[in-house]
Amino acid sequence: MLVLNLDRKSSEPLFKQVFTQLKVLMDTAVLKPGFRMPSTRLLSEKLGVNRSTIYKAYQELWALGYTESRPGSYSYVRKRKPSVTRPKEVKKNTGDVFTTEAADKVYQFFRRTRGQILHGKKDGLINMSEFLPDPRLLPVEEFRKSLNTVLKEQGAKLLKYSKIGGYMPLRKYIANRMQQHGMQVSPGEILITGGTQTSIDLLTKLLAAPGSRVLTEMPTYHAIFPLLTFYNAEIAGIPMDENGMDIGVLETELKKERPAYIYTIPNFHNPTGITLSHSRREQMLTLCEKYRVPLLEDAFEEEMKYFGKVPQSVKSMDTGQLVVYLGTFSKVLFPGIRIGWIAASREFIKRLAALKKYSDLSTNLPIQAALADFCQSGYYDLHLKRIHRIYRKRLQTVQKAVKTHLDIKGVTVSEPGGGYLMWVRLENLTVPEDELYRRLRELGVAVSPGSLYYNDHRPHSCFRVSISTLNEEEIETGFARIGQVLKKIASDDRGPRHAG
Amino acid sequence: MLVLNLDRKSSEPLFKQVFTQLKVLMDTAVLKPGFRMPSTRLLSEKLGVNRSTIYKAYQELWALGYTESRPGSYSYVRKRKPSVTRPKEVKKNTGDVFTTEAADKVYQFFRRTRGQILHGKKDGLINMSEFLPDPRLLPVEEFRKSLNTVLKEQGAKLLKYSKIGGYMPLRKYIANRMQQHGMQVSPGEILITGGTQTSIDLLTKLLAAPGSRVLTEMPTYHAIFPLLTFYNAEIAGIPMDENGMDIGVLETELKKERPAYIYTIPNFHNPTGITLSHSRREQMLTLCEKYRVPLLEDAFEEEMKYFGKVPQSVKSMDTGQLVVYLGTFSKVLFPGIRIGWIAASREFIKRLAALKKYSDLSTNLPIQAALADFCQSGYYDLHLKRIHRIYRKRLQTVQKAVKTHLDIKGVTVSEPGGGYLMWVRLENLTVPEDELYRRLRELGVAVSPGSLYYNDHRPHSCFRVSISTLNEEEIETGFARIGQVLKKIASDDRGPRHAG
Repeated sequence: MLVLNLDRKSSEPLFKQVFTQLKVLMDTAVLKPGFRMPSTRLLSEKLGVNRSTIYKAYQELWALGYTESRPGSYSYVRKRKPSVTRPKEVKKNTGDVFTTEAADKVYQFFRRTRGQILHGKKDGLINMSEFLPDPRLLPVEEFRKSLNTVLKEQGAKLLKYSKIGGYMPLRKYIANRMQQHGMQVSPGEILITGGTQTSIDLLTKLLAAPGSRVLTEMPTYHAIFPLLTFYNAEIAGIPMDENGMDIGVLETELKKERPAYIYTIPNFHNPTGITLSHSRREQMLTLCEKYRVPLLEDAFEEEMKYFGKVPQSVKSMDTGQLVVYLGTFSKVLFPGIRIGWIAASREFIKRLAALKKYSDLSTNLPIQAALADFCQSGYYDLHLKRIHRIYRKRLQTVQKAVKTHLDIKGVTVSEPGGGYLMWVRLENLTVPEDELYRRLRELGVAVSPGSLYYNDHRPHSCFRVSISTLNEEEIETGFARIGQVLKKIASDDRGPRHAG
Repeated sequence: MLVLNLDRKSSEPLFKQVFTQLKVLMDTAVLKPGFRMPSTRLLSEKLGVNRSTIYKAYQELWALGYTESRPGSYSYVRKRKPSVTRPKEVKKNTGDVFTTEAADKVYQFFRRTRGQILHGKKDGLINMSEFLPDPRLLPVEEFRKSLNTVLKEQGAKLLKYSKIGGYMPLRKYIANRMQQHGMQVSPGEILITGGTQTSIDLLTKLLAAPGSRVLTEMPTYHAIFPLLTFYNAEIAGIPMDENGMDIGVLETELKKERPAYIYTIPNFHNPTGITLSHSRREQMLTLCEKYRVPLLEDAFEEEMKYFGKVPQSVKSMDTGQLVVYLGTFSKVLFPGIRIGWIAASREFIKRLAALKKYSDLSTNLPIQAALADFCQSGYYDLHLKRIHRIYRKRLQTVQKAVKTHLDIKGVTVSEPGGGYLMWVRLENLTVPEDELYRRLRELGVAVSPGSLYYNDHRPHSCFRVSISTLNEEEIETGFARIGQVLKKIASDDRGPRHAG
């Protein structure tokens, strides 16, 4: 039997300890070639650790060539010792940088904004910067069952290319659901995509010729900036107030020049959390009809209202086939499965499908089928009910925490009726933006900088707070920490002035 | 108990019969709201049909709102009768066609070439036009097990966004495998993508500025034409002989103007099946170094040699970091899972990853993890061994069939040592191209027209034969039918001449 000594107090992760000790045993041929490794289950029981710890250690060993697997669950120590040297470094031609100007701009955006949104939780940090569903609430088991059901029922048929428009039962489900939300959409008017980013990419390919303009709320979803930059399209930002996009400014811009499209996030807007009012939706649609401009309605949080009544979607008011509806399962269900959709007129969908075909051939079929089964089995509705209940409470916690901790002169916080995002604005901020985020991080809270959501490359005195992955306790702690830093800045601010 | 009458001789599919009869029972309230439908298993046993037949019928009923599902396996007749009318047709604005010029060209290509590759099998047709792995040979069960393993082991972690470069264990597996094929590649030099089409799209975004040129074999993979057209890049085609791309012509073109990249399919080339010789690979690489041009090596069939020795990959000879290797699991394993990869220098990969992030955010994570597990468990190797054995026999059958049926004056057929494709050339074809394909279809065999693989919009006297989804008997029948048509044309041809 294998003898390993794990030090649970060590800062070295357990899987790393398992890996290192096994590696030594193989390097020194204590474990000889051909030795059958114990199963992950057995070893995890013996060592009293999680099975995933052993799994991870085994994966490392395998990846480095120490073990080989045979079909079934066992792995064996490899016959030939792996070469310990890494592949020799090949001659670098650092002189050549192969990139177009447009691609380089995307890369520079990536480098400039890297780290402004943190991923994961570590060291007691309250992460209010990342924006994805809470992993603790995901119905993983139900989805796994759906994957099994469809693969058992349909087998190899699901491992071929998907039809261009997507998996028909999923298109039907979505059409059905949209009809229940008052939108007259048939399955043929739906294109399944690999998520909203892909949808925007396709629509930009279809609509935005180089040099054209796109109108959108400002601030807005940051990942649209490099996407439009790549296609050499320019953004004209329309300011917002507490009811959403300013329709007067929108018309002024429409009069100047016909844009390729208008992009809007009407519900629980990213980054501000603001919802576009019903009357502005009507006005926006009227303007689109008047100026013959397609409207991209990014409805990624359509389902996530907790308080009050959500206005009708713009798509549901559209009789002129100008509204293109962008839906996704990423923000209420699983981001990792990469499934979204576009609902638009048949003519739009046909043209988008052709563009999609030559961009990616098709969208993952087994995942589409599993998702359709998951939804049809009622799990999606059940999941929505459950997270509504939970996030309603979380948002109530936000409201209390804001009153308790952010009742500071010059600080305003948006009050969303759903979704996961709040926008904090600071009047007369006296420290540089960078300094503010540094201090917040020092105190154990991460938010995402306001300037990320503007395309003017200037600092902005505001930031986005996301509660998507936080429970009530974490929300309370996070806002307390934000309050502490903002109060300190406010008092430091008064301090020097008095001293001066 | 439900009473249904199925007519097995009817041309109406069984699932449709089940669907229609159940629908009538619900419309007439024989099945009342709240009625619990029998399980798919039970009903399939009672009716003596496949379970998938019932499953499909139930899906239709559900999609039309006749039934609702509750978590678990049962579905119920819905309380409210669905509105029978389809959503009313909204006013069509056929006047507006929203499209850029570039996107319209892609759409026109799509329309022009639609139907030139047939999908699926029906009515005894031997389909030699589609090109994807034989569904009968796919290791579906093993993949399903891997999906279960990773979702049980890692749970919700796998339903978040994937890291930008891809799932690390999969990158490690691929690097390891490429090292075994003599390529010095580390995991950080690999980017997981959604398949080769996506890889080419990303590389074109990175390398091909509007107005630039791309050099490639002519004929070549047809789906690259509309992709390059969209980005306003021009193709200069390099002719081929039985050893692959003509290196002399390649250098002439390189001298004219530095292209954005060279795209080549060195093994079992699509559409011709030809393999680029070792010496030409060396020459090609030398030219790339001399003219500082990146080389895209599309190695989608790297693993599929059955006879003789496959030359080293160009990537394995590259010391100047100019070769970009495109790999995929679509042509040897599952097209439906949409996983491919790019192996290139770190600098390339970093820039591609940024472009990818703003095109699709990330690649499907549970599928990446399942694939890594599948490969690590040894199933990929096992699958390759199995299909090698099978396709070696199939290709021997091709060789025999070509001798038996295509020994016709003026007809030449390429002789691939692997892959699934043959290229049939016809000298002095006396009937129009369309007429040839019509006659082949009439006799029950579909091939894909040669002109699809050229970008000169002219007819070509050649066509592609794919045996990827055919067993030995089907191959023999297919070639026999091709031979019959070609002989008939040849004799008709002689006929009139003699008469004249």
